[in-house]
Amino acid sequence: MTRTVVESATKTVVIGFDEPFCVIGERINPTGRKKLAAELEAGNFSTVEKDALEQVACGAMVLDVNAGVVYNSNPNPNETEPPLMTKMIELVQGLVDVPLCIDSSVPAALEAGLAAANGRPLLNSVTGEEDRLELVLPLVKKYNVPVVAISNDDTGISEDPDVRFAVARKIVERAADFGIPAHDIVVDPLVMPIGAMATAGQQVFTLVRRLREELGVNTTCGASNISFGLPNRHGINAAFLPMAIGAGMTSAIMNPVRAVEMEAIRAANLLMNHDANGGEWIRLAKVLDAVKEGASFAEASQAATQPSSGRRGGRRARA
Amino acid sequence: MTRTVVESATKTVVIGFDEPFCVIGERINPTGRKKLAAELEAGNFSTVEKDALEQVACGAMVLDVNAGVVYNSNPNPNETEPPLMTKMIELVQGLVDVPLCIDSSVPAALEAGLAAANGRPLLNSVTGEEDRLELVLPLVKKYNVPVVAISNDDTGISEDPDVRFAVARKIVERAADFGIPAHDIVVDPLVMPIGAMATAGQQVFTLVRRLREELGVNTTCGASNISFGLPNRHGINAAFLPMAIGAGMTSAIMNPVRAVEMEAIRAANLLMNHDANGGEWIRLAKVLDAVKEGASFAEASQAATQPSSGRRGGRRARA
Repeated sequence: MTRTVVESATKTVVIGFDEPFCVIGERINPTGRKKLAAELEAGNFSTVEKDALEQVACGAMVLDVNAGVVYNSNPNPNETEPPLMTKMIELVQGLVDVPLCIDSSVPAALEAGLAAANGRPLLNSVTGEEDRLELVLPLVKKYNVPVVAISNDDTGISEDPDVRFAVARKIVERAADFGIPAHDIVVDPLVMPIGAMATAGQQVFTLVRRLREELGVNTTCGASNISFGLPNRHGINAAFLPMAIGAGMTSAIMNPVRAVEMEAIRAANLLMNHDANGGEWIRLAKVLDAVKEGASFAEASQAATQPSSGRRGGRRARA
Repeated sequence: MTRTVVESATKTVVIGFDEPFCVIGERINPTGRKKLAAELEAGNFSTVEKDALEQVACGAMVLDVNAGVVYNSNPNPNETEPPLMTKMIELVQGLVDVPLCIDSSVPAALEAGLAAANGRPLLNSVTGEEDRLELVLPLVKKYNVPVVAISNDDTGISEDPDVRFAVARKIVERAADFGIPAHDIVVDPLVMPIGAMATAGQQVFTLVRRLREELGVNTTCGASNISFGLPNRHGINAAFLPMAIGAGMTSAIMNPVRAVEMEAIRAANLLMNHDANGGEWIRLAKVLDAVKEGASFAEASQAATQPSSGRRGGRRARA
C-alpha cells in the first residue's frame, strides 16, 4: 500500500489510497498577491498568521509555504527567498501543528525550508527537467522527505497525457536511482483548463488511475485550474474533486477556506468510506448551518474548533 | 457501444457511455405524497401539470410517471392504477415532448401505460423475482421497449454487491431468452444509505464499473437514497452523482427541481466531455445567477427556456 508520510513536530499525516483526501492549503503564497508581497517586504506577517490559522480551522491537513517574493528593494529571489522561507516556516509552525509543504523554485529556499521545518515536510517540487532533477532529488534524499513531482520536462507541458505519464515515470525512476522510494513521490499529473481542452477532466481521471496502478504513487494537483476561464468555477471544482477522488487522487493543493470545495471533499471522503461513522461530515454540517446564518466559512470553522470559548458559532463578527 | 434509445413522439434520448447523463424526473408519483394522491382521486391534475413542466425546464430528459394511488374510495390498485396511468400519460405527453418512463408494480398499469405512450418509453421496472420476470419481460418484448432492471430477487435485497451483480446478470440472461438485447436493460444496482452501510458508495462505484464492463449495460439509480438519514443530504448527493458518473453510471431517477444536484450533474457532464463547448454549463450558470437573486430554481429555469416572453429571468414573483 502506498503511504506518503508527512510530519510536523507533533502530527503525522498519511497521504494514501485508504486515507481521507489530503487537503494542502495553498494560501501562504505571495505569488499574485501584491498586498501580501508588500506586507512581507515590510516585515508584516499578519496575513500569513491569519492564513495559517484559517486554513487549518477549515480543514487543511498540510500547509504549503511559498516565499516567492520579488521585493522592490531587491529583485533577486536567490537572495530574498531563503531567509524569508526560514522566517515564514518558523512563524507558521509556531502557530499551528500541521505538517508543512515547502514550496519554491529556488533551490536555496528549498534547503532553507528543509533546515527550518520540524518533522518530515513535503517538498514542492521537482519536475522532469534535467536541471531540476539534479538539484532537487539530492535534497529529497539528504533530508529523507517526500516530494511533489510535476509531470513537465525540458520540452514543457505536453497536452498528450501519455507524455505526461512518461515524464512521471522518468521522475520515479530517477528518484529510485537516488534511493528514493516511489511512495515518497506525489505526482501532479497537471490539470488543464476544461474550457481550453474539453478532454482535460478525462485526462486527469485516466492519468490518476494509471499513476496509481502502474507506478504505485500518490497524486496531487492544483485543482482549481480545471475551471479556469469558465463561469461558476466553484461548481466545476466541486464536481471535479469528488470525481478525481473516485479515480484515486489522494491530495490537492487548494484553497481550503472555500466551503463549496471543502463540502465536496468531505462528502467524497464519506462516500469512499474514509470518514468513520460520518463524524467529519456531521461536524461540517453544523459549520455549514452557521454559514447559512451569515458567518463566513472561516469564522464558522474557527468557532467550531473552539467549543470551550463560549462563543456562538461564527456570529462573533456580528455580535 | 451500449445505447439505450428512449423516444417520445418527436424526441429521442439516448442513454449511453458517450452521452450526457440522463436525468429521469421522479416527481410525478403519488407515493408518499398524500396531497397529490387526494388531488388525483378528485380528478385534479394541476400538480401533475406543474411537475411535468417544471421538471423539463430544470433539465429532466425523461419523465417517470407513476400512478400508484390508494384511493379512499377504492383501495384496489389493480382497478385504479391502469386507467389513471393512461390518463396521466396522455396528459403529460400533451404538455411536454420528452420521452416517458412508465413506473408501476401493477402489470396491468404497465400495459396500460405502454398502450398510451407515444414512441418508445422506458418501462420501470422488472426485478430478479421469478414472477416479475415472467410478467414483465413479455411486455418488454411485445412493445419492444427498454426496461429498468432492479437487482433484487425472491430473497430480497442483498447487502453483498456480488449477489446484486449476479441478480443483474440473471435478468440480462433471462431477457436474452426473450430476445431482448442487453442494451435495452438499464440496471439499478440499488443504492444503500451510506449512513447505514459505510461501504455503500464504493459498492455502487464498483458495481457500475462491473455492470458496464462485464454485462455492457447502462445503469440507473435512485440517487438520493445514498444520503438517507444524514444531515445536509444535498451535499452528499452532489458528490455522489459526479462520482457515480465518473464510475460509468449513465442515468438516475431523481428530483431535477433541485439546483444543487443538477449543478453537480451538469459539471460532471462538462468534465466527462459530454457538454460541447460548455454550452449547457454556461446556460446553467445564468440560471444560477437568477437563483442567487432570489428566484427558485424552477422559476429561473422556466424563464431561461422562454427567452421571447420578455420576462426577466426569475424575477417575476417579485416584480
